[in-house]
Amino acid sequence: MNGYSILEIAKALGAEAVGETGLKVSGAAEPASANGRQIAIAMEPRYAADLQKGDATCALLARGMDWQSLGLKAAVLVDRPRLALAGLTSFLDPGPSLPSGIHPTAIVDPTARLGSGVDLGPYVVVGPGAVVGDRSRIDSHVSISGGTTIGREAIILAGARIGRNTRIGDRFVAHSGVVIGADGFSFVTPEKSSVETVRETLGGAASDQGVSQSWLKIQSLGGVLIGDDVEIGANSSVDAGTIRPTSVGDGTKIDALVQVGHNVQVGRNCLLCAHVAVGGSARLGDNVVLGGQVGVADNISLGNGVIAGGATKILSNVPAGRALLGYPAMKMETHVEVYKALRRLPRLFAIVENLQKSVSKTKQSD
Amino acid sequence: MNGYSILEIAKALGAEAVGETGLKVSGAAEPASANGRQIAIAMEPRYAADLQKGDATCALLARGMDWQSLGLKAAVLVDRPRLALAGLTSFLDPGPSLPSGIHPTAIVDPTARLGSGVDLGPYVVVGPGAVVGDRSRIDSHVSISGGTTIGREAIILAGARIGRNTRIGDRFVAHSGVVIGADGFSFVTPEKSSVETVRETLGGAASDQGVSQSWLKIQSLGGVLIGDDVEIGANSSVDAGTIRPTSVGDGTKIDALVQVGHNVQVGRNCLLCAHVAVGGSARLGDNVVLGGQVGVADNISLGNGVIAGGATKILSNVPAGRALLGYPAMKMETHVEVYKALRRLPRLFAIVENLQKSVSKTKQSD
Amino acid sequence: MNGYSILEIAKALGAEAVGETGLKVSGAAEPASANGRQIAIAMEPRYAADLQKGDATCALLARGMDWQSLGLKAAVLVDRPRLALAGLTSFLDPGPSLPSGIHPTAIVDPTARLGSGVDLGPYVVVGPGAVVGDRSRIDSHVSISGGTTIGREAIILAGARIGRNTRIGDRFVAHSGVVIGADGFSFVTPEKSSVETVRETLGGAASDQGVSQSWLKIQSLGGVLIGDDVEIGANSSVDAGTIRPTSVGDGTKIDALVQVGHNVQVGRNCLLCAHVAVGGSARLGDNVVLGGQVGVADNISLGNGVIAGGATKILSNVPAGRALLGYPAMKMETHVEVYKALRRLPRLFAIVENLQKSVSKTKQSD
Repeated sequence: MNGYSILEIAKALGAEAVGETGLKVSGAAEPASANGRQIAIAMEPRYAADLQKGDATCALLARGMDWQSLGLKAAVLVDRPRLALAGLTSFLDPGPSLPSGIHPTAIVDPTARLGSGVDLGPYVVVGPGAVVGDRSRIDSHVSISGGTTIGREAIILAGARIGRNTRIGDRFVAHSGVVIGADGFSFVTPEKSSVETVRETLGGAASDQGVSQSWLKIQSLGGVLIGDDVEIGANSSVDAGTIRPTSVGDGTKIDALVQVGHNVQVGRNCLLCAHVAVGGSARLGDNVVLGGQVGVADNISLGNGVIAGGATKILSNVPAGRALLGYPAMKMETHVEVYKALRRLPRLFAIVENLQKSVSKTKQSD
Repeated sequence: MNGYSILEIAKALGAEAVGETGLKVSGAAEPASANGRQIAIAMEPRYAADLQKGDATCALLARGMDWQSLGLKAAVLVDRPRLALAGLTSFLDPGPSLPSGIHPTAIVDPTARLGSGVDLGPYVVVGPGAVVGDRSRIDSHVSISGGTTIGREAIILAGARIGRNTRIGDRFVAHSGVVIGADGFSFVTPEKSSVETVRETLGGAASDQGVSQSWLKIQSLGGVLIGDDVEIGANSSVDAGTIRPTSVGDGTKIDALVQVGHNVQVGRNCLLCAHVAVGGSARLGDNVVLGGQVGVADNISLGNGVIAGGATKILSNVPAGRALLGYPAMKMETHVEVYKALRRLPRLFAIVENLQKSVSKTKQSD
Repeated sequence: MNGYSILEIAKALGAEAVGETGLKVSGAAEPASANGRQIAIAMEPRYAADLQKGDATCALLARGMDWQSLGLKAAVLVDRPRLALAGLTSFLDPGPSLPSGIHPTAIVDPTARLGSGVDLGPYVVVGPGAVVGDRSRIDSHVSISGGTTIGREAIILAGARIGRNTRIGDRFVAHSGVVIGADGFSFVTPEKSSVETVRETLGGAASDQGVSQSWLKIQSLGGVLIGDDVEIGANSSVDAGTIRPTSVGDGTKIDALVQVGHNVQVGRNCLLCAHVAVGGSARLGDNVVLGGQVGVADNISLGNGVIAGGATKILSNVPAGRALLGYPAMKMETHVEVYKALRRLPRLFAIVENLQKSVSKTKQSD
């Protein structure tokens, strides 16, 4: 292959090309390991220092960096490094190597409808009445249940499971092992359960451990509704709603091993990092960002723009725009202050003990 | 389809029908979005207020609510709303749309035994000596390893993996991506490991980072034993025991993305919510309820009826009937008290500092 | 089958056989449930007491235990019980019952290369240019993407997904549902995002909830590099790197439902327990041990031999050899001290209140 010229790359990124802009590369690499056919990613000075260890003759640099003093023949100068990285990796990415066309082992129900240019890999199963939009690419071993609708240009990777009653917008990306539309975790005891008592009393009344309680299931009839431009990571699960659909808004990105419970409403352009768990019927506004292992209790509401740091456990409603940390969640700045105090807590006990002695002596000496 | 009459629904729920009880519906919906062919779910006054926004002519209401003043033609009056929801959704649920019969692509070992009325979807694999009970329904891409026994009327959804040495009771439900019987996570170093030292000294001795230690595996020969009426959510995993089986008692329900470690004993009628992790050899009594993201350390014992709120991390044994919260777990009421104190902690430091000054002055003035 | 003699077992474990060492057994069991054909695992006195409840005539005991007074005919005496358990279970384990040879339904791209003695189960798919080493055993429904290299003697269980650009060493074990090489969770907004503002100000500036921000994806071109003797548990996920590979070192063992983010470097001989989440670009040294549900923030560095107890949340760099606990992580001994103080905190408030009263009186009486 002939690769891409520095000029072509700069154009694709809307950036500036400098030096021998006709120089061609076939890929990208970190500065220390780049060879002469790769553009080095060196947008911070500390990374640029590694250019000497590798054989790069050109690099992606932040505007203002001196490409000539770094010994380069050419460079692409960018204003927002991570944005440029998105552009460059998209430009270079050949995409997943999915097979083209309908593999002969794919089993498609005669009542299902496939758009034009749809690819189905080996051992794919598409159920009755399912609809798959134009140019969607479905990898091996995927199952799409009956009655499900998927928009255009989806990429669904090996072994993902798209359950019944699911409607998905355009440009959906599902990684391997994703499960959409499993039943919600919703059970009820015939009589009042110990959990209900504990919730009412905040633990004040001990649960009655003598009574055996069995659980009846509330079925999930509501399905799942997913907007456009949504991506869901490996082995994540979005449960079906009870009566109305669980919903995920346009542009929202969900990482690996995330659980979105039944009836949950996730807004637009949210980020849910790995191992996030959102409890049943919780509502997340737009542009909510939840760090890894964040938990959101059931029936909770988070306003637009809420940001929660890693492992925050959110047990009550949060107004729009708030940044959170901790378990239970506090405002991030409060948490930082409380955490500092916490580390000094054993010392505080010693101080108070001394104070008690002093006061006691003062009293005695009165 | 002709749907169900209000009278039929009330009978199915053991509830009271009022008004034009011959009125027919074909499904259920929330009050605001219900159409004339749907029964609205409006068992709380705040939901009933939304009836005006939709076109429902009948509703499921809590006893005591005034169906006529809500403008309805008919209603089903119930005593325990969530229980009625379980009844109604089960009544209306057509169940998963699994294919009937043995699909020609299902591969069943000649020594496996299938009960009567068993359904096997496309690309199912059943290993040597496996047994599947009457009327069990196995969705596409499921694998059932050799020597495994599954009871009657199971529903096993697409891509679930039932490993070797597993015995499962009747009416088992496994969602997509469930893995039963993977090897336990059990390793040992030839010499005493740094982890053992840390456990003995509670971190007092730093681990010897200079020594490289490799891990030998303790194999999992014990399999898994699952009772009747157990349900396991999407992408959850129950590991095999070492010598004796890991066990899950009758009626226990496990949510999505839960990990049950090797040798664990889970009692009857427990609820384990999403992302729960139960460490190896832990023992849970009956009717234990663990909220989302709860962790149970290995070798820990929880008595009957223990309830842990979301994200509780249980590091030591817990007596029966206790309600817990926090990391490390405390009694729920203690945690609430400690948490309140924690938020006031920075203030406490200020108060104590002032006290120190006062006492110091008092002393000087003596 | 004739089973193994006590002498054979002792030899396999490098241990001492005593009594009727020709006695034969066909398996192992716990003391209370062992029958006459099973060797009882009774290496602690509290377990040995149960020998009376079962029918064992021989047992695996710790050196120094009196086999004759326990009523046994023979015993194997070992120095390090868990190590002996690794040896015995490996000796007795028949291994997963995978089918032999290439199943006729396995689909192997003509450009893929399979070593000698490779087993491929039903419905396996191997992509173009993939390489599978000698004697590797691939269970049903596994997919191996194009361009991937797997070493010798791998065991890859049903439904695991090995993505593109992955290179794996020898003796790899992957349990069902493992996903290697999914895209990293790496997105950027065209303009500065609210998350960047919060990171800079530690939550001091509220995020601007008025502005809707959409996310552009940074693609994952770097693949995954996995060493020799690595094992990965059910439904765990290791994401591909951006430019360079995400890497997992020789001898590292990863439990179920673990997420290893993009660009992460995990050292050699680490243990990552269930539900661990390692954020993007984090670096773990050798012999790091992370308990269940531990979280490691992105871009963090952990030195060799770091040990973190269950549910520890590590938000900043950690030097080698340190033992940690808590959220945010503290040195384990500090955490124990802080936790004790925390439980006494409400009492401290009462003490300080009393002190205030005393001091106030003292002042007034001056």
